[in-house]
Amino acid sequence: MTKPIAIIAGEPNSISSEIIFKSWKLRKQYTHKPLLVIGSFKLLNLQKKKLKSHIKIKEIKTDFSMKDLRGAELPIYNVNYEQNKVFQKISSKSNKYIFKCFDIAISLIKNKKILGYINCPISKESLFKNRYQGITEFLSKKENVKGNEVMLIYNKKLSVSPLTTHIPLSKVNSKINKAKIIKKVKIINNFYKKTFNRRPIIAVLGLNPHNFSPSKQSEEKKIISPAIKKIKKNRIKVIGPVSPDASFLLFKKYKFDVIFGMYHDQVLTTFKTLFKYDAINITLGLPYIRISPDHGTAENITGKGVANPKSLIESIKFFSHIK
Amino acid sequence: MTKPIAIIAGEPNSISSEIIFKSWKLRKQYTHKPLLVIGSFKLLNLQKKKLKSHIKIKEIKTDFSMKDLRGAELPIYNVNYEQNKVFQKISSKSNKYIFKCFDIAISLIKNKKILGYINCPISKESLFKNRYQGITEFLSKKENVKGNEVMLIYNKKLSVSPLTTHIPLSKVNSKINKAKIIKKVKIINNFYKKTFNRRPIIAVLGLNPHNFSPSKQSEEKKIISPAIKKIKKNRIKVIGPVSPDASFLLFKKYKFDVIFGMYHDQVLTTFKTLFKYDAINITLGLPYIRISPDHGTAENITGKGVANPKSLIESIKFFSHIK
Repeated sequence: MTKPIAIIAGEPNSISSEIIFKSWKLRKQYTHKPLLVIGSFKLLNLQKKKLKSHIKIKEIKTDFSMKDLRGAELPIYNVNYEQNKVFQKISSKSNKYIFKCFDIAISLIKNKKILGYINCPISKESLFKNRYQGITEFLSKKENVKGNEVMLIYNKKLSVSPLTTHIPLSKVNSKINKAKIIKKVKIINNFYKKTFNRRPIIAVLGLNPHNFSPSKQSEEKKIISPAIKKIKKNRIKVIGPVSPDASFLLFKKYKFDVIFGMYHDQVLTTFKTLFKYDAINITLGLPYIRISPDHGTAENITGKGVANPKSLIESIKFFSHIK
Repeated sequence: MTKPIAIIAGEPNSISSEIIFKSWKLRKQYTHKPLLVIGSFKLLNLQKKKLKSHIKIKEIKTDFSMKDLRGAELPIYNVNYEQNKVFQKISSKSNKYIFKCFDIAISLIKNKKILGYINCPISKESLFKNRYQGITEFLSKKENVKGNEVMLIYNKKLSVSPLTTHIPLSKVNSKINKAKIIKKVKIINNFYKKTFNRRPIIAVLGLNPHNFSPSKQSEEKKIISPAIKKIKKNRIKVIGPVSPDASFLLFKKYKFDVIFGMYHDQVLTTFKTLFKYDAINITLGLPYIRISPDHGTAENITGKGVANPKSLIESIKFFSHIK
């Protein structure tokens, strides 16, 4: 039996509800798994009117049956959003509502009602202040898997994964160690094996320009190369350290599936330039699969009806591979 | 009168002599300026035989006249390369020869015999050990312009320039300051004004992922934003701080001419992926213009006849703009 996927409606003052509606129309073309939304019934109805949609929204309970889902066009578990207005400036007023949505999703997973979930964009700054660097780290803490979480930005041609995520550049070198590299590369390898039944080719990048540091104790020599050597003993197809500035030029020639970098902008900048919105953000290392579209709240176009649902559609599609 | 351009033959055990021959054939199609080579007569003759070329190489002296240049197909100022063999492993055995070539070029500039020069690839590691980070820094020291040198990787669609160059990533944040940003952006702006008679749009990047650091003393707030504010007062078209991972996605929309980054891989990785060899490396801030092809010695294909001369040709072409 195929379990349903939940979609967390995300930040109310964003394009989230718009991309849900736009994705819903053709959902049966790209997934056989039942879908449900976790979010505000009122908000979704408002968006429905804005988009002049005819999709029927139907409330469900947490103990829903598969029959309930199949009987509804857009099944939603309602979480009250207490503000009267939406499409306002994003603020911490949405926090309680958003955290509640995550809690519902996680309890549905614990009760084996859903396979995993997709969360629509939220604002990291408003939601977490300085408590967490992002959703990846928030969930890692919540699930107590600290250190095992992996951010994988996936595209079927090439994916990227940064060892460190949203931390200041000045902190990067102190956060790199051999054990972390080994652990995270193994998690990525296992994910590809389980999901696609094959071993991926993983390129591990150096830290410094041209992999070169005048110090004999360079991170490449002391940390990255020894980690790669160890990973190779596990029958994992790993290559590196690859010179950062040449890595994306080489990916087609050497058929890299994943470029594993040491810091956020090292891999994300070029990846975004190449693939734009044709990417999804998967958190690995949790007891379940969590995916989000690889874009932000897009405040500048909120409520204007011009948001592109491609990344949410790709997120829904991706769950077809997950058993 | 248009002054000649010198081409320094570069590392003997590399593709340098091959790309010179390949560029020479059609040189009159892309430059009206006379060209001359500074390097080993013997080495160039060897390469000529390898490539079965019919181009006539002719030795000239340092007090050459324009007539001497125009009368020769490939005029060369001979610098003896004392090794008997070439196309060997690159080593410090070439250093004396390479430094001599640079000295000749610089003395020709001082004597107003040439307008500037192009140096073919050398190996930074062999030539400089840990004394200089690269040619940009070597020349900056030689010409005593320390701190004013600017590395501009140029393509007519988009150029990039890193504030810091070949230094370890862990040192980047300590090397960033307001005065340096202001000085280098001004040098770039003046170069575009003088060369192309227009003010370029320069995007200055932040340092941290999404320009965000939990510290109130983040580099964006403390250094980069105040520097940009100051630059704007000089009628320079500057934008920023731009979030690093979005910068290359935005360049067409906002018509950036230059993306000015805080460190090497922040701008070079995506730039190389987008433009490959269609770029040249210009050093600004010296008393003359120095250009080099934007690629290395390519040891893996040395002597095989398959090297691509595109970047050297673009370097020669670029000098047409220089008065």
